[in-house]
Amino acid sequence: MGTGLIGGSIGMALRARGWYVNGVDLDPLHAQRALDQGAIDAIGEDAGALVTFVATPVSAVVPAVRKALAASQSGSCMRVVTDVSGVKAPILAGIDHHRFVGGHPMAGSEQDGVDGADPDLFEGATWVLTPTSTTSPEAFALLRGVISSLGADVIALGPEKHDILVALVSHVPHLMAATLMGLAANAAQDDRAVLRLAAGGFRDMTRVAAGHPGIWPDICAENREAIVATLDQLMSDLSEVREIVSRDARDELLARLDRARLARRSLASPVSGSDELVEVRVPVADRPGALAEVTTLAGSLGVNIDDLVLTHSAEGDRGVLILVIAARSVDRVRDALRQAGLHPSSVVRLD
Amino acid sequence: MGTGLIGGSIGMALRARGWYVNGVDLDPLHAQRALDQGAIDAIGEDAGALVTFVATPVSAVVPAVRKALAASQSGSCMRVVTDVSGVKAPILAGIDHHRFVGGHPMAGSEQDGVDGADPDLFEGATWVLTPTSTTSPEAFALLRGVISSLGADVIALGPEKHDILVALVSHVPHLMAATLMGLAANAAQDDRAVLRLAAGGFRDMTRVAAGHPGIWPDICAENREAIVATLDQLMSDLSEVREIVSRDARDELLARLDRARLARRSLASPVSGSDELVEVRVPVADRPGALAEVTTLAGSLGVNIDDLVLTHSAEGDRGVLILVIAARSVDRVRDALRQAGLHPSSVVRLD
Repeated sequence: MGTGLIGGSIGMALRARGWYVNGVDLDPLHAQRALDQGAIDAIGEDAGALVTFVATPVSAVVPAVRKALAASQSGSCMRVVTDVSGVKAPILAGIDHHRFVGGHPMAGSEQDGVDGADPDLFEGATWVLTPTSTTSPEAFALLRGVISSLGADVIALGPEKHDILVALVSHVPHLMAATLMGLAANAAQDDRAVLRLAAGGFRDMTRVAAGHPGIWPDICAENREAIVATLDQLMSDLSEVREIVSRDARDELLARLDRARLARRSLASPVSGSDELVEVRVPVADRPGALAEVTTLAGSLGVNIDDLVLTHSAEGDRGVLILVIAARSVDRVRDALRQAGLHPSSVVRLD
Repeated sequence: MGTGLIGGSIGMALRARGWYVNGVDLDPLHAQRALDQGAIDAIGEDAGALVTFVATPVSAVVPAVRKALAASQSGSCMRVVTDVSGVKAPILAGIDHHRFVGGHPMAGSEQDGVDGADPDLFEGATWVLTPTSTTSPEAFALLRGVISSLGADVIALGPEKHDILVALVSHVPHLMAATLMGLAANAAQDDRAVLRLAAGGFRDMTRVAAGHPGIWPDICAENREAIVATLDQLMSDLSEVREIVSRDARDELLARLDRARLARRSLASPVSGSDELVEVRVPVADRPGALAEVTTLAGSLGVNIDDLVLTHSAEGDRGVLILVIAARSVDRVRDALRQAGLHPSSVVRLD
C-alpha cells in the first residue's frame, strides 16, 4: 500500500526474488506508474497476501494498517502487516496487534516517487523492526526472513528506543545540515565566494539538505520530544566547544577531536557478515513478550541476528527461541540474556 | 619547504608539468621520503627558485617565508613566495612583502604525510590567494598562472575575508561534525544500536571527523574570533529551529528546509568552465593596491578569473589589468568595478 520510492523499491526487490506483488496507492496514477515501471504485478488489494507493506505518508499509515489487518483476518497461515515510516512510537500507540510489526528501512534517495525506486535500495541497509510484547513471534520471524532476503540488515528495537536513536542519527543531523546550509546561503548574499569555497567537507555535511523537505514536518511533529531533547544536547555540546576554542584549551580540543575520530573510524568498519555463526537457544515462556525482549536486547548490543527460529514445546506453554549470531558476539549476548533473567542454554557452532 | 601531504602533492603536480622541484623539510627523514616517492627532484634549497611554496605547520610558516624571501632577493626575474596554511590574516600580519602572496589550497585528505600525496589533489579544487595592497601584480600573476596550471580554480580574497568565510564553510563544520560524532559515541555506550542505525546521511555528516586532529588547535587559535562568532550564529539558528519544531510550526520549518534545499542544489552545479570568455580591460593606477582591489572584488562576486595579464603604459605611471572571465559574468563585474570607482573599458569576446 503506497507505491512511491520506498513502496516501489520494495515491490521491485520482492518481484526480483519471485514474489507476486499487488499494489495500491492513494493516487491511482501513482499505482499505474508503479505497474508501468515494473514495481508491482497488479493494481489492487490482496486479502490473501502473506505480507503487507504500508508505505503511505505517515498520516495515512494507521488507517491503512487497520484496513490491511481487517482484510487479512481469515486464512490458515500467518499474515503480517508492517509499515515503513520513520517514527515508530506514535504508530504503535495507534495499533496494538499481534500481526503488526512496525518497521523502518533506513534507506532513501534524494529522488521522489516510483521513478526513483530501485530493487537494490535495501542491499546492505539497516532495517529496524520494533516488536512489542504484543507481537506474535511467528509474524516477526516471517517478516524478518522476508526483509533479510532483500539484502537488508534487520535490527530489533523497542519503538521508543528507535525514535530516540533516529532523532540522534537522522532527524537532528538533517536539521543541522539545513541550518548550516542556510547560514552559508545568508553569507553568500553578501559574498558569493562562500559557494566557491564550499569544498568536500562542507558538501558532505550539507548533502542531505538537498532532499525533498515534504516528509520533515510530519517527522518533526511525531518525534518532537526526542528531536528537541537531542537539539538541546547538541547545542550544549557546541557551547562547550565554543568555550574551549574561546580560551584556546588545546588539550581539551584535541581530546574531543581524537575521541570523535576514533568513533568515526569504528563506524567505517561495518559488522562483518563472514563471521563464524553459532546458535543460541533461549527457552522462553511461550508468549509474545519474550520475542521482543530477546530481539531488542540483541539490537541494543548492536548484535546482528542472522536467523531466528521459534520452536514450541509439545505442551504448548513453553517454547525455545533459536538465535543465529556471530560467534564473537555470543558471550556478550549470553551475559545480557542472563542479566535479563533468561536462561540461554546450549550454544551450537554452525559451519 | 615542507614535504608533507600538501607540499608533496604540489611537488608531484609540478614535476608532472615539467618543473624542477627542490624540497626541504624540518624532518630530514620526511624530505628523504618525499624524494623516494617522487615528490621532489632533489633535497635542498634553491635560491633561484621562481616559486617557493611554504607548506610547513602553521607555527613555522612566518620564519620559513622570511627565509625564502631573503634567499631569493637577487636575480633579474620575479620570484614569488606563497604558503598553504588555512588561516591567512595572522600570516599576512607577520609578513608584509610585495613578493609574498598568501595562499590556501582547499584540498586535503584524511591521510597524513607524503604517503598520502597525490599529483591530482588540486584538480578542480578551489585555491584561495590573498593579495593585499602591498602585493606585486607580477608576483600575483606568476603565482596565479602556476597554480591554475595544476588544475586548481584560483580565487582572490582579502585575508580577513578569507578567514571569516573558511570559519563558515570549513572550521565550524568540522567542529560540528566532531560534536555530532561525540554525541553519537556517548549514546553508543548505552546502546550499540546507534552505530548500526548511522546510515548514509550521518556518515556523510561526520566523515571529516575521521581526519587527523593535529592541525585543529592551531587553526582554532589563529582563527578564534571568526570561529566563535560563527558558532554563536549557528547556535542561535539551531535554537530557532528547536523553537520551530517545539511549537510544530510546519510552514516555517518547510520554508527553512526549502531554502536550504535550493541553496544546496545551486551548490551542486559548479561554475562551468566551458563558457564563452571575454577580456575586460581595467586601467589602473600602476600601483599594487589596484591588483588586490580588482581581483578580490571578482572573488567576492564568485567570478572565476580565467586569466590575468598586467600591461604597463610606456610612461610607467599607468597600467592596464586584463581580466579574462566568463561572458555571462561580465555585466556584474563591470557594474561592481564602476561602483568601486574604476573604469573598465573595452570588452573583447575571445573565441
